Amino acid sequence: MKQLLLAISLCMAGSVMAEKASVGIVIHGGAGTIDRSQMTDEQQKNYEAALADAVNKGYELLAAGGSSLDAVTLAVTVLEDSPLFNAGKGAVYTWDETHELDAAIMTGQDRNAGAVSSVTNVKNPILLARAIMEQSEHVMLTGKGAEQFAASQQLELVDNNYFNTDFRFEALKRAKEAQQQLPHQAAIVADPNWKMGTVGAVAIDHTGNLAAATSTGGMTAKRWGRVGDVPVIGAGNFADNTSCAVSGTGHGEYFIRYNVAADICARVKYQGKTAASAASEVIDELLQAGGTGGVIVVDSKGELSWAFNTQGMYRAKRDDSGTVVEIFATQREKAGN
Amino acid sequence: MKQLLLAISLCMAGSVMAEKASVGIVIHGGAGTIDRSQMTDEQQKNYEAALADAVNKGYELLAAGGSSLDAVTLAVTVLEDSPLFNAGKGAVYTWDETHELDAAIMTGQDRNAGAVSSVTNVKNPILLARAIMEQSEHVMLTGKGAEQFAASQQLELVDNNYFNTDFRFEALKRAKEAQQQLPHQAAIVADPNWKMGTVGAVAIDHTGNLAAATSTGGMTAKRWGRVGDVPVIGAGNFADNTSCAVSGTGHGEYFIRYNVAADICARVKYQGKTAASAASEVIDELLQAGGTGGVIVVDSKGELSWAFNTQGMYRAKRDDSGTVVEIFATQREKAGN
Repeated sequence: MKQLLLAISLCMAGSVMAEKASVGIVIHGGAGTIDRSQMTDEQQKNYEAALADAVNKGYELLAAGGSSLDAVTLAVTVLEDSPLFNAGKGAVYTWDETHELDAAIMTGQDRNAGAVSSVTNVKNPILLARAIMEQSEHVMLTGKGAEQFAASQQLELVDNNYFNTDFRFEALKRAKEAQQQLPHQAAIVADPNWKMGTVGAVAIDHTGNLAAATSTGGMTAKRWGRVGDVPVIGAGNFADNTSCAVSGTGHGEYFIRYNVAADICARVKYQGKTAASAASEVIDELLQAGGTGGVIVVDSKGELSWAFNTQGMYRAKRDDSGTVVEIFATQREKAGN
Repeated sequence: MKQLLLAISLCMAGSVMAEKASVGIVIHGGAGTIDRSQMTDEQQKNYEAALADAVNKGYELLAAGGSSLDAVTLAVTVLEDSPLFNAGKGAVYTWDETHELDAAIMTGQDRNAGAVSSVTNVKNPILLARAIMEQSEHVMLTGKGAEQFAASQQLELVDNNYFNTDFRFEALKRAKEAQQQLPHQAAIVADPNWKMGTVGAVAIDHTGNLAAATSTGGMTAKRWGRVGDVPVIGAGNFADNTSCAVSGTGHGEYFIRYNVAADICARVKYQGKTAASAASEVIDELLQAGGTGGVIVVDSKGELSWAFNTQGMYRAKRDDSGTVVEIFATQREKAGN
C-alpha cells in the first residue's frame, strides 16, 4: 500500500511538474526583407535547422528544470556560434572592416540586467553581458573597458578576424560602393537588411521567472561608434515578471526612440493587454513612424508570441504544445499587418 | 456690433495666446547626500546662483518664442560650463584619472533623440548629443567614433585636462584609498554622492512641444567603460508630447533597470496619472529596490514638478508663476518621502 501511494504520489508529482513545467522559449535570428525567391531550399533548410537547434537546446534545459536565464543564454550562444546570423560568428562588418558587437540580458524577477556595446574580441558577447549583470555592480560597459572586464572574467577571447565571413564582407563592399554613389541611406540600397540582423531569446521557467537575451553584430558599414537598440535596456531587450519579456530586432534607432521592449511590457502592466496584442500594437505604431522590425515575447502566463512588420523574421518557439519554426510571414501575420 | 465681436475675438485670441504661451522649464544639477551642515553659506550661494543663471537663460529663450529644444540645450550648456556640477567642466575622474562624459537629448513631438557615451574631448557633450540627433541617422554613438563625428560637426574640442578640477581629483583619491581597503562599494564610503552627479533640463515651449536634455561626467573612479543611465534613452532622459518629459539623476544602474524616465511617462499615458504623482511613485519604488536619485518632469499641460528620495537635489524651475531655486529637501518633500 505504501508503495502504491508512493507510486501515485510520484505520478502526481510528475503531473504537477508537467503543469508547473509549462515552460517555454521563443527565439529569433533577425527580421527584414527575407525574400523566399532569393533563398534556395538548402539555405532555408540550414536556417530552419539552426533555429530548431537553438530553440530545442533552450527548451530541453527548461524542461529539465533549468532557469529561463540559463535557457536564453544557451539559445543565444548557439545562434552567436552559427555563421548564419548577425551576432557572434557571422557579425557584419563596420565601415573600417572590423566587427563591433553588442549584447544585453535581463532577468524578470529582480529586473537585474547586463549590457555591452562595441566589443571586438569577445567570442560570445551574451556571456559578457551576463557576467556584467552577475559579477559587476554595473549594468552597461562599453569598448576597451568592457574587454578588460571580459578578460578579468576569463571569458573566451578571439582575434577580431574570428568573426570574418565571406558573405558579410561582400555585403560591406556593396554597401560602401552604394554609399559612394548616394552618401545617405546608401547601405539600404545595397542590402535591405543592413540594420536588421540580431538574435534573441525570451523564456519562462518552471518557477515563472522570465528572462530575455539579445545579441548583435550591429549594422553593416556602421561608423562613428554607432550603438543600436540591443544594449539599450528597454529598447531591444527587457524582462519584468509583472508583465513580460521581450527581445527585438529591426531598425535599432526606432527601437530606442520608441522604447519598444519596455513599452510592450508597460501596456501589459498598465492597460491589462495581452502581451501578444501589446506587441502587435507597438510594432504597428513603429511602422507608422517609419521603423521596421519585430519582437518575440513571453508573458507571465507563459504565452509565447511574436510580431513583425517585415517580410519575414527568422523565428522559432517551443512549449508543451510543440515546436514552430518559421521564416516568412504566414497568412496570419500578413492579415495582421 | 461686428467691430465689437471682432474686438472680443481678438481679445480672446490674445488670452488664448497667453495661455498657450505658458512656457516653463525645470533644471537639476544632481541629487544625493547634500548635507546642509557640510555646505558653507558661500557654497550654497554659488550653487543657487548657477542654478538661477541656467533656469533664467532657458526661460528667457522660451519667453521670447524659442523652442523647448533650444531652451534645454542652453540650460544644460550653462550647467556643463560651470565647475560646480558633474558634467562638462567639473566632471568627475575615472579610475585612470581621465574624464569620460555622457549626454542625451530628446524632443517630444517626433520622439527624435541623440545620445553619446564615453567621450573625452568634447567641451559640451550635450551639443554632440544634439548633433547626433539632428545631423546623423543614428541615435547613439560611443567613444572614439563619437569623437570623430564631433570633429566632423565642427564642435568645440578640448584636451581632456580641460575637465580637471582640484576638488574632483581629491574625491578620486579618497575613492581609490577607500577601495583599496574595501574592494566593493568603497567609493560610496569615500563619497556618498559618487554616482549622483548629473545635470539636466526639461521644458515646454509656446507650441506645446516638450524636450529633455541630460549630461554627466559619470561616476567617480569608474572603470571598464562603465556607462550610466544618461545616454540610455528611457532610463535617464525621455520626452514624448503625449505624456511628459523627464531628466533623471541618481544611481544610474537602477535608473536603467527600472526604465525610470519612460516608466513615468507610461504611467501618465496609460494610467492617466499626473506627471507629478507618476514621478513620485516611480522614485518611491526605486528607493524600495535600493536605488537613490531624483527626476525633474514637465507634462503636456505645462505642469513642472520634481521628485527625489535623497537628502537634496540641486534644482530650479521657472514658469509664469515665478522662479524657485532649491537645494535641500523641503518639509513638503520630506513628508512625501
